[in-house]
Amino acid sequence: MQLMRLGPPGAERPVVRDADGALHDLGGLTADIGGAFLANGGVAMVRAALEAGVLPRLSDEGLRVGPPIARPGKIVCVGLNYRDHAAETGAQIPAEPVLFMKAPDTIVGAYDEVLVPRGSTKTDWEAELGVVIGKTARYLAEDDDPLSYVAGYATSHDVSEREFQLERGGTWDKGKSCETFNPLGPWLVPADEVPFPQNLGLRLSVNGVERQNGSTSDMIFGVAEVVRYISQFMVLHPGDLINTGTPAGVALGQPEPKPFLRAGDAVELEVDGLGRQRQTFGQA
Amino acid sequence: MQLMRLGPPGAERPVVRDADGALHDLGGLTADIGGAFLANGGVAMVRAALEAGVLPRLSDEGLRVGPPIARPGKIVCVGLNYRDHAAETGAQIPAEPVLFMKAPDTIVGAYDEVLVPRGSTKTDWEAELGVVIGKTARYLAEDDDPLSYVAGYATSHDVSEREFQLERGGTWDKGKSCETFNPLGPWLVPADEVPFPQNLGLRLSVNGVERQNGSTSDMIFGVAEVVRYISQFMVLHPGDLINTGTPAGVALGQPEPKPFLRAGDAVELEVDGLGRQRQTFGQA
Repeated sequence: MQLMRLGPPGAERPVVRDADGALHDLGGLTADIGGAFLANGGVAMVRAALEAGVLPRLSDEGLRVGPPIARPGKIVCVGLNYRDHAAETGAQIPAEPVLFMKAPDTIVGAYDEVLVPRGSTKTDWEAELGVVIGKTARYLAEDDDPLSYVAGYATSHDVSEREFQLERGGTWDKGKSCETFNPLGPWLVPADEVPFPQNLGLRLSVNGVERQNGSTSDMIFGVAEVVRYISQFMVLHPGDLINTGTPAGVALGQPEPKPFLRAGDAVELEVDGLGRQRQTFGQA
Repeated sequence: MQLMRLGPPGAERPVVRDADGALHDLGGLTADIGGAFLANGGVAMVRAALEAGVLPRLSDEGLRVGPPIARPGKIVCVGLNYRDHAAETGAQIPAEPVLFMKAPDTIVGAYDEVLVPRGSTKTDWEAELGVVIGKTARYLAEDDDPLSYVAGYATSHDVSEREFQLERGGTWDKGKSCETFNPLGPWLVPADEVPFPQNLGLRLSVNGVERQNGSTSDMIFGVAEVVRYISQFMVLHPGDLINTGTPAGVALGQPEPKPFLRAGDAVELEVDGLGRQRQTFGQA
């Protein structure tokens, strides 16, 4: 099953998609799919209700696909976490995970318009495995199982503005938190349906041209290690999102003239089993 | 008047403190002091109710002072924004504001315990002017008045772990988002009661020894410029917090052995007119 949120921005209703692709309304079970729902057994409750056949069917006609979780408390991102991407950007393989933050209000739906920021000439794509936290993770020890703190997985697009990120002084955050810069979804797939997250293909194309084709098997630091590592520096709360890094193939890594995104470009991306996104870019 | 939130963590009630220091319950007017309240004329409503004498009096006996605003959507910080602080850390004067993010869940009350992270040897202090946004700010133009987008001001403590920030790879965020690392308050002072935010003294002492004594008049980029600048890179929403930088005197800038914070240390800080904080540090 897959969890979704359907409806206008800010007024999405919680929905579950069953194995046949049919949609069922979760409005009777929960007001939203957020940290409290994920921390309090919401996924198990939905599964039981789905199996019991008690959920009202829903037609998706005309309903916008929102991000599959409510606005996260924070978005923590891992940089340079695929060897080939580190190489293409001219960076060294990091000795420990590189972390940065993205503003939580950048989350949009999988098919929403993404805006090229004003003044941008270097808007870039990054297909990523998104990890949604389900249980408070604080100083996880070596014998803790970090994956048991994960509620689920989603396709995540860590849109980035390279000039703002790398050439305007300070940290990367300036190029990571622009409006609409984190399409998420279309679905949240419960963690127990993704028992091994280190063997998922990721693909991204721009205007029909394939640009990224990698696998989470090439991550330098896997999901379990990333969750454990982050928990040493900050508390991960239910509903928080981790973007785990992107494989090679971003515009920044291409020969000149680099094919940075412009209004009108269409980007499609997917992670195996987690669903496909498509965004048309507009101008802010 | 000053806005406050009093009560246990996560269950604070909204309160207004009048010119005589008396407390009045705002529970009948609003559930919380957050983005929606600030965006929808909440401050004017409170002032009118206070003047009309219709608010129930409240005794503060035994009530914890929480952060004066609900958890922000994001915390944007300006780095190296005082010339003397840039100099003491060996950094150049930035040509444009240096931005980084702090996790919104780091916000605690002005007198709450702050935890030295596990493995930390370089926990440091930073007294700052905190700016709370009251109106959505997006691509502010030269003829917009950035200060009209500010709901109010608060004393903010941007606690920082320098090894995590500077020596562990990646961006500064790793040393900025540790648990309890952003005491805020005790009050939010409405912006119209701070008509000129560039002439406020900031002072901080550790165990009774004065460590910082600066003025917002020494900011490289003033509040108005900072708000306008940030709005070019991301959307500022009501309830968001900006930490505007710290003057000289942090532990990192002292001669060896640098006096980084340890469990048991007591830090006191204040910004003119915005109230005084006091934290005893504990061990995570």
